[in-house]
Amino acid sequence: MIVVMKTGATEAQVVAVQKHVRELGFKDHRIHGEERNVVAVLGHVYPELVDELGVLDGVDTVVRISKPFKLASREVNPYDTVVKVGPLAIGNGTVIIMGGPCSVDSEENVMETARAVKAAGGHILRGGAFKPRSSPYAFRGHGEKGLHILAAARAETGLPIITEVMDARDVELVAGLADILQIGARNMQNFSLLDEVGRAGKPVMLKRGLSATIEEWLLAAEYILSHGNRDVILCERGIRTYETATRFTFDVNAIPLVKRLSHLPVIGDPSHATGKWYLVEPVGLAALAAGADGLQIEVHPNPDHALSDGAQSLTPANFAKLVQKARVLGAAMGRPVAPPIAELEAESRPARARKAS
Amino acid sequence: MIVVMKTGATEAQVVAVQKHVRELGFKDHRIHGEERNVVAVLGHVYPELVDELGVLDGVDTVVRISKPFKLASREVNPYDTVVKVGPLAIGNGTVIIMGGPCSVDSEENVMETARAVKAAGGHILRGGAFKPRSSPYAFRGHGEKGLHILAAARAETGLPIITEVMDARDVELVAGLADILQIGARNMQNFSLLDEVGRAGKPVMLKRGLSATIEEWLLAAEYILSHGNRDVILCERGIRTYETATRFTFDVNAIPLVKRLSHLPVIGDPSHATGKWYLVEPVGLAALAAGADGLQIEVHPNPDHALSDGAQSLTPANFAKLVQKARVLGAAMGRPVAPPIAELEAESRPARARKAS
Amino acid sequence: MIVVMKTGATEAQVVAVQKHVRELGFKDHRIHGEERNVVAVLGHVYPELVDELGVLDGVDTVVRISKPFKLASREVNPYDTVVKVGPLAIGNGTVIIMGGPCSVDSEENVMETARAVKAAGGHILRGGAFKPRSSPYAFRGHGEKGLHILAAARAETGLPIITEVMDARDVELVAGLADILQIGARNMQNFSLLDEVGRAGKPVMLKRGLSATIEEWLLAAEYILSHGNRDVILCERGIRTYETATRFTFDVNAIPLVKRLSHLPVIGDPSHATGKWYLVEPVGLAALAAGADGLQIEVHPNPDHALSDGAQSLTPANFAKLVQKARVLGAAMGRPVAPPIAELEAESRPARARKAS
Amino acid sequence: MIVVMKTGATEAQVVAVQKHVRELGFKDHRIHGEERNVVAVLGHVYPELVDELGVLDGVDTVVRISKPFKLASREVNPYDTVVKVGPLAIGNGTVIIMGGPCSVDSEENVMETARAVKAAGGHILRGGAFKPRSSPYAFRGHGEKGLHILAAARAETGLPIITEVMDARDVELVAGLADILQIGARNMQNFSLLDEVGRAGKPVMLKRGLSATIEEWLLAAEYILSHGNRDVILCERGIRTYETATRFTFDVNAIPLVKRLSHLPVIGDPSHATGKWYLVEPVGLAALAAGADGLQIEVHPNPDHALSDGAQSLTPANFAKLVQKARVLGAAMGRPVAPPIAELEAESRPARARKAS
Repeated sequence: MIVVMKTGATEAQVVAVQKHVRELGFKDHRIHGEERNVVAVLGHVYPELVDELGVLDGVDTVVRISKPFKLASREVNPYDTVVKVGPLAIGNGTVIIMGGPCSVDSEENVMETARAVKAAGGHILRGGAFKPRSSPYAFRGHGEKGLHILAAARAETGLPIITEVMDARDVELVAGLADILQIGARNMQNFSLLDEVGRAGKPVMLKRGLSATIEEWLLAAEYILSHGNRDVILCERGIRTYETATRFTFDVNAIPLVKRLSHLPVIGDPSHATGKWYLVEPVGLAALAAGADGLQIEVHPNPDHALSDGAQSLTPANFAKLVQKARVLGAAMGRPVAPPIAELEAESRPARARKAS
Repeated sequence: MIVVMKTGATEAQVVAVQKHVRELGFKDHRIHGEERNVVAVLGHVYPELVDELGVLDGVDTVVRISKPFKLASREVNPYDTVVKVGPLAIGNGTVIIMGGPCSVDSEENVMETARAVKAAGGHILRGGAFKPRSSPYAFRGHGEKGLHILAAARAETGLPIITEVMDARDVELVAGLADILQIGARNMQNFSLLDEVGRAGKPVMLKRGLSATIEEWLLAAEYILSHGNRDVILCERGIRTYETATRFTFDVNAIPLVKRLSHLPVIGDPSHATGKWYLVEPVGLAALAAGADGLQIEVHPNPDHALSDGAQSLTPANFAKLVQKARVLGAAMGRPVAPPIAELEAESRPARARKAS
Repeated sequence: MIVVMKTGATEAQVVAVQKHVRELGFKDHRIHGEERNVVAVLGHVYPELVDELGVLDGVDTVVRISKPFKLASREVNPYDTVVKVGPLAIGNGTVIIMGGPCSVDSEENVMETARAVKAAGGHILRGGAFKPRSSPYAFRGHGEKGLHILAAARAETGLPIITEVMDARDVELVAGLADILQIGARNMQNFSLLDEVGRAGKPVMLKRGLSATIEEWLLAAEYILSHGNRDVILCERGIRTYETATRFTFDVNAIPLVKRLSHLPVIGDPSHATGKWYLVEPVGLAALAAGADGLQIEVHPNPDHALSDGAQSLTPANFAKLVQKARVLGAAMGRPVAPPIAELEAESRPARARKAS
Repeated sequence: MIVVMKTGATEAQVVAVQKHVRELGFKDHRIHGEERNVVAVLGHVYPELVDELGVLDGVDTVVRISKPFKLASREVNPYDTVVKVGPLAIGNGTVIIMGGPCSVDSEENVMETARAVKAAGGHILRGGAFKPRSSPYAFRGHGEKGLHILAAARAETGLPIITEVMDARDVELVAGLADILQIGARNMQNFSLLDEVGRAGKPVMLKRGLSATIEEWLLAAEYILSHGNRDVILCERGIRTYETATRFTFDVNAIPLVKRLSHLPVIGDPSHATGKWYLVEPVGLAALAAGADGLQIEVHPNPDHALSDGAQSLTPANFAKLVQKARVLGAAMGRPVAPPIAELEAESRPARARKAS
């Protein structure tokens, strides 16, 4: 961080800034210019410090130079993080695809969807047992019962499951049943929850808050990483803008930018980002062309009767078409869609067997 | 809610929409037009239903007519809610002013600030014991110890205290010590927390989420109200826009609009909404001129050394000036600043004594 | 502007930056730090230069220190600009109020409105003869005929007139008939038009673009000022945000901030900023409490039949109420509403007569 | 448009709405519901009408059903518009790529860039002779001289040229020299300019305004189309959002949505949308994957010395890589990059010759 003093700042003011910086536990370093002085602040600075120093007497401008996130940063760790989920590897240069209903409704529907996701070549089953809803009168999910429905679908299909956890008190329960914990957009800055999933020992997919900056998103990841959980996956799901023709605006810029700033894998969610099923395929393919490590897609056997977000769900047939196009695109661009889970399982079995023997 | 069918929609499609509406537990009512059919949906509809019906075959547009919030709505309850906090009444046509540090730091500073708030004619002491911070490396508050510092300041000054609760697991603790529970902007859609404070038996001040629509804000209030807690206060604290010259954009339009849509009191927070101490007074006065029931202001005896948000804190002297100007403005506009807490206490004592006797 | 080099930047890279800065016509000044070098860029830098220097090898960050606007800046001219329009003074510490129809429709309506504005104590008549409309099929104004209607209303009432000019080719025509030229929000960065009104010899009111930053707004003012026209008035009319409950979001923060950054007067337009007549009064009063030098209000004798923007127009009766409240507020806050135009005229006549004799 | 009356609206209020609708030149059609009445408004309604009717007594809500744009709409013209520029066809299912400097600087640079664009397989040369700049002190382009430099580059390379026109008075000049007229984002609602290019007899590329909704963008196209000019190309160039990590947010959702709403071709501009050269390739490929008909890319032989927007310009080598990747992506996805202009020229020659004979 660089504190630029005003042209006419007094020596006493510069010294006061230096003293203040030291009191906060940072190191200071003064640069004597001809026209003005500059005080560099060294250490793990945080974003709010810009405002805190900016208010001191004689200060003109405060500028952050280093990024406030450390563990999430590619400067600290230049190598791509690869998150292992059973035989799957997320972030290793292949593309993985998650599919499933927004909400877990009936066991029949979830089973049917899970089979369809598997048959189409999808890799992970998604489904919400705990649902954040803007209205207290909307369906809020089946809770624990929903988790068991997902687990049953995993038992039959072999697909790992990802599901949202909304309450710090539920983390243990959800972590006991799910393969990946999902933090929803509305909870991206629920810091108690971030602390808890940081200690849960399971991979976490962190959705970007609907008005979070990229920096805030990476700082939220930093919360999880700082507890020792290195298996963090990011998910771009659209940001809130003035445009109302789509539910959110998919920030495709964010995908290559985050890949440059951070070593964490990034998934695109075109279902929530558009809110319209007919935009899911083109925006999903765009996410992959921009470098996403995978997609999360809403799939429902009967979108007209889904308990939430039917408008943005693909039918199994349309999901299969999307996976097929992703395959063609990925093959052409050198980022192939990962083989089906059963093949990965078969490949990895001898390896594990060897290790075990 | 009104479902407008396409011009060429078939009879079967219209019937399917009607059937679907009934399956979801709503009543339907069909309007036969010459060119197109319209299906009215009656009952407690929720926002997501627009998308869910919009995806059905033959549907052109779905339009909400009634508001999705009920208990928060002035249509349901036309009379202004007045929240009583000790001798104070929030929302009764007078203006109340909350002041205090962003974070509770040392007991000395909090005591000094509390005395200054009281001396200036402020009514409520604010201070954060649990602090949401975007970075895990920033100061996150003194927690329970901070609550006791606030309680000590209340004991000395008689000012009721308001403090943020961030975690559903802390609600009982905080409700045991604070007079008003504050839900921060980042937790406006932390639905588990809303449920919990809805059951806590203490007044709740709900800050608007930094990208929440007015409707989402009132729906979040609805969560609290739906648990039987009618003492909900709203707080406009600035929304996130493209403008970066100020930290947020104070949505002054929201104040009269919310007062029209809802019976709940509305407080303005110009400190967070601007991020700059020299904008706090003019924007605070603007909030009052627009009809706010009060202000929440950051005050610190030594803003340069505040542990958070010093840039937006007023000195005690500047806070006193703001209260004085609010008094002049309020008197002119027929919305007087409430008398100091000691006077209110004195006034209410005989009344209580009479009741007791 | 400060160019912060990367920690490991080579001497050659620093020298290349310095050379580049000089080639662009700026002066450079190097600050040797222990860990990194900094190059200060001196001269009239422009915003785009941040990106242009940021791309050079070895550069970490580029930071603007001085403001890109000069003539509009309070640093250059610390004294409030007062714009004289006949006997009126805009920006002298009193409040002036403009009222009138969005579009000039019939002569009868304009006359009736002008009389009502005058009777209520309004100072300036507004009305659009040339109307920007998002659709080519909407009413686009009566053009020159509308200007003559406005001039006739001025002749009868003595109120100066303000009207929008949208096309550089019309500046001469409009400047010949109007007292103040208005640049609409959609033309705030129509640079040809700004150049032309800069040469027109008439006061100009520059509305903020609907997604313009405060800096872009002041730079647009700079275009006009740079042609020697010092009579520039700014007008905040709401910015586009994600919130759709109101047409725009009135950026009340901008009023005190612009008054601090610039010496130019600032008018608030709550009619366009809210889009709803019942929000015009509270938001207008808020603008005044925040320090605005005046208001621009839509008034129509029969808002239901206005050719544009009826929804946000006040009836003459409601306009009179607003002026009355502004008077009370202004008197209390030490920023009185200016006396009616006839009184100002009477006051200034002897002075002029004396000069003439 | 549908006017929903309040539940308790009187017969007289409904009749007044119907009368009002007819006075404005529309047809009305009343739907008698059991609980409330609805008045349908038929004809070429415009967006502002929602507010104009919404203010009438007894009206609850006004809802637009039909789109306000007609000629731009796929409902009116279901077939893709193909814009012919010499031997090129834009919008015919192939991808075309425009490259060139942001500003026309020296003849040498433009020539070198034009050769590089051609060698890489680009189809159209872009370059700004008239430059909109936020500051009056920045370089504003070489004007007419710049047009002649572009024409010379076309003469040598055979590449058609596209260049911006900012002033209605320059349309004739620019139309005489350029192959495609570009309307910049800041002028998207400069209606005088839109009228003028609508009459210019040359293809027009209309950039989306930086805070324009999709509807406003298509209405701006409607202005041009309504003058009989059917050769309109749209260009998504990023919208202004709260995210400042990139210059704008590329609205990738808009591409498939606009292709669905309109028959006009859509080009993606990842250079302005990101502001960072290293994001241009991934975001450009994303635009193509989402269905864009082409790209507009900034290319400069020496981005460090470009007179504007160097930070976002590709070197010729990076541009060639992007075209190559676009070729691979396009081939895989069934939307091939168009052959080089020389091949197209050769192919079309015999055809023209045959016609002529």
